Formats: sequence, structure tokens, C-alpha cells
Amino acid sequence: MGSMGDESKESFNGVFVPNDTRGKVITCKAAVAWGPKEPLVIQDVQVDPPQSMEVRIKIVFTSICHTDLSAWLGENENQRAFPRILGHEAAGIVESVGEGVIDMKEGDHVVPLFNGECGDCVYCKSEKTNLCGKLRVNPMKRVMSIDGKSRFSSMDGKPIYHFLSTSTFSEYTVVDSGCVVKIDPNASLKKMSLLSCGVSTGVGAAWNTANVQPGSTVAVFGLGAVGLAAAAGARAKGATRIIGVDINPDKFVKGKIMGMTEFINPKDLKRCVNEEIKELTEGGVDYSFECTGNLEVLREAFLSTHDGWGLTVILGIHGSPRLMPVHPMELFDGRRITGSVFGDFKGKSQLPQFAEECLNGVINLDEFITHELPFSKINEAFQLLIEGKSLRCVLQL
Amino acid sequence: MGSMGDESKESFNGVFVPNDTRGKVITCKAAVAWGPKEPLVIQDVQVDPPQSMEVRIKIVFTSICHTDLSAWLGENENQRAFPRILGHEAAGIVESVGEGVIDMKEGDHVVPLFNGECGDCVYCKSEKTNLCGKLRVNPMKRVMSIDGKSRFSSMDGKPIYHFLSTSTFSEYTVVDSGCVVKIDPNASLKKMSLLSCGVSTGVGAAWNTANVQPGSTVAVFGLGAVGLAAAAGARAKGATRIIGVDINPDKFVKGKIMGMTEFINPKDLKRCVNEEIKELTEGGVDYSFECTGNLEVLREAFLSTHDGWGLTVILGIHGSPRLMPVHPMELFDGRRITGSVFGDFKGKSQLPQFAEECLNGVINLDEFITHELPFSKINEAFQLLIEGKSLRCVLQL
Repeated sequence: MGSMGDESKESFNGVFVPNDTRGKVITCKAAVAWGPKEPLVIQDVQVDPPQSMEVRIKIVFTSICHTDLSAWLGENENQRAFPRILGHEAAGIVESVGEGVIDMKEGDHVVPLFNGECGDCVYCKSEKTNLCGKLRVNPMKRVMSIDGKSRFSSMDGKPIYHFLSTSTFSEYTVVDSGCVVKIDPNASLKKMSLLSCGVSTGVGAAWNTANVQPGSTVAVFGLGAVGLAAAAGARAKGATRIIGVDINPDKFVKGKIMGMTEFINPKDLKRCVNEEIKELTEGGVDYSFECTGNLEVLREAFLSTHDGWGLTVILGIHGSPRLMPVHPMELFDGRRITGSVFGDFKGKSQLPQFAEECLNGVINLDEFITHELPFSKINEAFQLLIEGKSLRCVLQL
Repeated sequence: MGSMGDESKESFNGVFVPNDTRGKVITCKAAVAWGPKEPLVIQDVQVDPPQSMEVRIKIVFTSICHTDLSAWLGENENQRAFPRILGHEAAGIVESVGEGVIDMKEGDHVVPLFNGECGDCVYCKSEKTNLCGKLRVNPMKRVMSIDGKSRFSSMDGKPIYHFLSTSTFSEYTVVDSGCVVKIDPNASLKKMSLLSCGVSTGVGAAWNTANVQPGSTVAVFGLGAVGLAAAAGARAKGATRIIGVDINPDKFVKGKIMGMTEFINPKDLKRCVNEEIKELTEGGVDYSFECTGNLEVLREAFLSTHDGWGLTVILGIHGSPRLMPVHPMELFDGRRITGSVFGDFKGKSQLPQFAEECLNGVINLDEFITHELPFSKINEAFQLLIEGKSLRCVLQL
């Protein structure tokens, strides 16, 4: 266990006792992925001190997202790197900061950001994108930028790779200071961990990417955490009809809680989903959200929107090399299609405000947590996700 | 010749002598397409009076656009209809109006609209689209909506089909009142004819679809009338760099006049155009306009924009059934791609204002007119377009 031990529990809430680990290598537990589909091994690892403009964080809660799953499965051969510490949804407490970090200090409550924000580049200075020129999401990256080295190593000194600039399946992790944001110390770290990826991605897609308008109609394809968050986000902005589409009707229960008004199980239909939705909504929905990563579903999502103004937001990860299932001339019907990364939130500058809104009840974060397990049971948590039984299983470190 | 004879010449300019043709069939000259690639035949045709909510127009000037050309070539088999009167870029004078038409009267100067605006439907009432539910552009349509009949017939009474709701290659034509807009009687009809399609499409794509911002960078692929109009529109909104791309360097002369600042001939390059543009512009242009209808060019246009915020507007007609040359994951780089019909101008409600701006010199319409011929030489005008020698050859009827 790391030297901070119990201090970091949920009850800790903002009171911080200075540590004696600053500047030193920390030995702690991490869940290490040694190869595709091999169960993660909870083992001792060494975590180097943060270098210039880096932050070392004690992770208090982490959960698992599909991107962790597909990295663990090794789905993209060119992104494989083992041994590796996966994980990118989390919340924690700053243990120490490297040289030059002035916006965070020991004891700050923080959320790591897989899609960072340096604040200085042409992208960060533009209002039109949340893709930082230096720290944007990069599944190929496996070491720290400043020296091309890993901050993790096994007890025999061999490097263990980073993942998505965050590597939260570890009691301690080191991230670039642009890849972590300070949050309200009074907020539950357990809830805040959800803002690291899935919930922000879905809600932000509705708020920022689509800019869902009051009274509008919405269809969400795929009712995992991201899809449900998109629905919750649309509901919060006053969408009056939100249609959930999934082949697993068990998902409809949670969908209803999140504000969905109708459900379609494609298996129950004798026609295409887009035809059903067009009839239900007099021509199609104003916005559709594709959260499955399946190209056929993407086409249904596209055609389910109203011609003239329908917008489809792609949130699912489409691994296949196939082209978009849309003909150029189909764009002349006035339907648009766009991608969205991290819900178009700029992590460092906009997440604190979003966290505040969640704390005020605009989005009910509790509903996303379906399971809680100790960190040691992380392989069980992976199984829950694989079997579609969990939305978010939060692991306490 | 039609009964109004010389009254309709450019010098006529707004003074109108009531006619005695109202309610009667008019016999006049039209250029009839009898089959794919067969030279148009200038011949007598009969033009029925306008029915309820229709308008009969004396066409004074018409020009030829690529959509006329592809219909004449019969490129899309399911859109073929012969005999047919093609043509959709024009300006003229109202000869008579059908029952219920209250916004136009005999003698009004007008421009026909291939993409009409009924003003009443859910689309027309939305600010998000210019695609009318009833009267939007429809290359399949060949008869009038109200009775499913043509208003044109040959002298032996056989019907001749309409084209794009306008059929302007005729001294008289009948259009739905939603497919024609009244313009300033003091404006040159010759210039106003350009607003029927190409110039509005290009300028509107820059103004409405892309909303080009001052100081931004632009690339235009394909320097025909639409591409040049997009450049002129971008220039008028303060774009500082406008890169013209064409394999015909003769087009660069006019491009410069229209405000382009740089030119690329892909044949002169040893690398892809998008790589060249990215280097020239530190990462890519803010907006690109695809005006060729070629899928490889569309991909270059897409990749030529800056990641994070680049927007590609598709203006070229892509006949092939191939899919969009973009992978879903590529949209996660923050580039967007959208179609644009008639430059997102709502024809009836917004074209008068645009015409006004042209008259005030915001867009120099004269530069688009490279040739002028009498209507009888329409087949020569087609040849000029096919050979890439003309931007717009205006035909006087």
C-alpha cells in the first residue's frame, strides 16, 4: 500500500496532512496488464516523482470504461504496449507536484484528463475545439512527453507503460499538469471520478457538440454509460422526447431513470430503426447520438434524424477501417454528422463548472454507479463490463 | 417569338405595358432537349396559362449551369425525361399570375428558384434549413405539382417536361409561385440571372453554410462559377488567404480577380494537395469548398482543413454511388463536413437582400459573365461550358 494509506478515503474530504513522499519513489499497488486478455495482476510497482510540469496523484477511486477494455483486449495492434497500467476514469488527491506547477498543490482534489489542455497552444486558445495540440487524447502514447520515459517500473526496475496520459489503475500515478484538473474539495471523489470520461463525454455531446435545444427530439443508440449520459444531458436541456435504442431491453430501466421517454429494441421491429423513428417523430429526431461503434448503427442514427437540420453525433469508437456509411449527396438533405471527443469539454477550464452543475443535481451522477468493489477485484469489474451488467463499477483504492 | 417581343429587353427595365396573353396559351420559342446528348432544338412550343399559385414568366436572360449539362448528357438514368425544357439560371418578367398569387403581379422583375420556398411548411418555418418540404430542389420532378401535368407542349399537343421546377430555356415558362422571387426592378436582369443558381450557391456557402470569419483561411477546389463565387463570398467576409486549386491554370486569372491569394495546380505537386496546403497554412485552412464532384478531391478538401475546427462544404454533385471518403474516426479530429444547397439561402425571403448587396458591389457579378450569345446559339453555349471556356455564357431571349 502507498504511504498515504487511509487518509485518502472518501471521508477524508479535503483535510490534508503533508506527506513525506515528496521527491521520492513511491512503492504501491497497481493493476498491471501484461498482455492482451491476460488477467490484470495486482502487484507492487515503483512510481517516480513528478518531473517538471507533472503531478503525482494518489488515486482514490477509479472505474473502467470501454477504452480500457479494448486496450486490454489489444484490439488495435498498433496501440498495444505491455506491460501497461490502464485506466483513465478516476479521482484522487495530489501527492506532490513537479517544478513549475502553480495551479495545483499537495492535497488538492483532482480528476485526471485523458484529453488534456495545455492552455497555451493555438487549439487551446480557440473556442472551437477541445483538442489540445500537445495533450489531446492519444492512444499511441505510452511514456511521458518531457523525457520519453515512463514513471512506472516493476520492482526489478523494468518500465511499465502509461495509458491515455492517466494510468489510473494504480494507487499513485504521474500525469502532465495539463492532464489533471482541480475540483471542489467538498465534492464526493467517488462521484467526481465519473467526470473523467463517460459522463462528461455523453452530457457534453448533448450540451456542447449538439447544443440540444428545449423542446427538441433525440434518439440515443446504445444505452451504456455514454448513451445514458447523452440522454441525461439532453433531458437537462429540455428535450421533450428522448428515444433509447438498444438490443438489450434490460437497459431500458436505467434509460427511463435518465429521462428517456420511449424505447426501441431493433429486434422487435420488422423494419429499419430509422423508419420507425421517422414515423414516431414526424420525419425524424433533431439529434441522434451513436454510442455503439457499429457502422450499421451509425447509418441508422444518421437516417433517423430529420432532414433539413438533423445532427448525428458520433461517440462510439469505430475500429474498422471501413468508410463512413454515408454518400456525399445524402449530406445535401441537410443532415449533418460530427464527432465529439470528451463531449467537447475543455477539461481544465470547463470541468469544474460542469462538476458544480452535477453537484447541484443537474445530472444525477449516482445513477451511473451500478457496482462498487475494492481495487483488488478489478478483474471482476472488467467481467461486469464485458457482460453488459454494469454501467460503472467504481473501484476504491 | 412570344407576343411580348422587344418589350422584355434589358433596356425595358421596369416599365410594363399590360399584355393580352393573360389566360391564353402562348406560342413561343424554346430550346427542347429530345434525348441525351442530342443538340437542343429551338422550336415553337405552347405554354399553358399558370394555374392556381403558379406564375408565367417571360424569360429575358438565361445561362447554363453544370446541372443542365448533366441532365442533357443524361448522366443519371433515373432522372432522365425527354422531351424536356432544361435551364434554371435566369431572370425575367412576370407575364401573368394564377389564382391566389398575391406577392407578384404582371410586370414584376423576377428570378426563378430551382430550390423553392413555400413559406408555410415546417422546413420553411425553421431557421436551420432552406429545403422546403414541398418545393425543394428535385431533379426527379418533371411536371407541375397541382395537377401532375406539364405546362409545355409541342405544336401537336404532346407534353414536354419541366426541369428543376424552372425550365428557363424558353421564352415563357410556368413555375410554382414559391419557385420565383421578385427583385428590384432597377437591377439589371442580365446580372440578376446569375443569382438563380451558381453565384448564390457559392457566395451563400461561404456566408451562410460556413459563416466564414474575418481573418480566416480558405481553400477552394474547382474554380468554376460556384468555386469562384465561394472565393468572392469568403473575400467579402474578410478571409485573408484564399487558396484556389484547379488542374487548369487558366482558371487562376479569374481566381485572382475574385480575391484568391494563392493557387495550386495539383499536377505541379509531388505530394498530395492537402499536405501542401497544411504546410502553407500552418496546419490547414479554416474552411474548404469542394466544387468538383470528385471523391478524391473531396478527401483532399477534407484533409486540407485544420484539425480541431476545419469545415469542408460540399458543393459539387457526386453522382457515383461510392461512400464518403472519410472514416468515422477521422471526425474525432474535429474536422467537419457538410452539404450546402443553394448556399443555404432561402430563395424567396433572402435573395432580394443578397441581390441588393450585389448591386452595392459586395459581389462583382459582371466578372462571372464571360460570354454573351443570342438564345438561338444555345448549343454553342453548351460547348463553351463543356470545354471549360466559359464561366457563365448569358443567353438573351
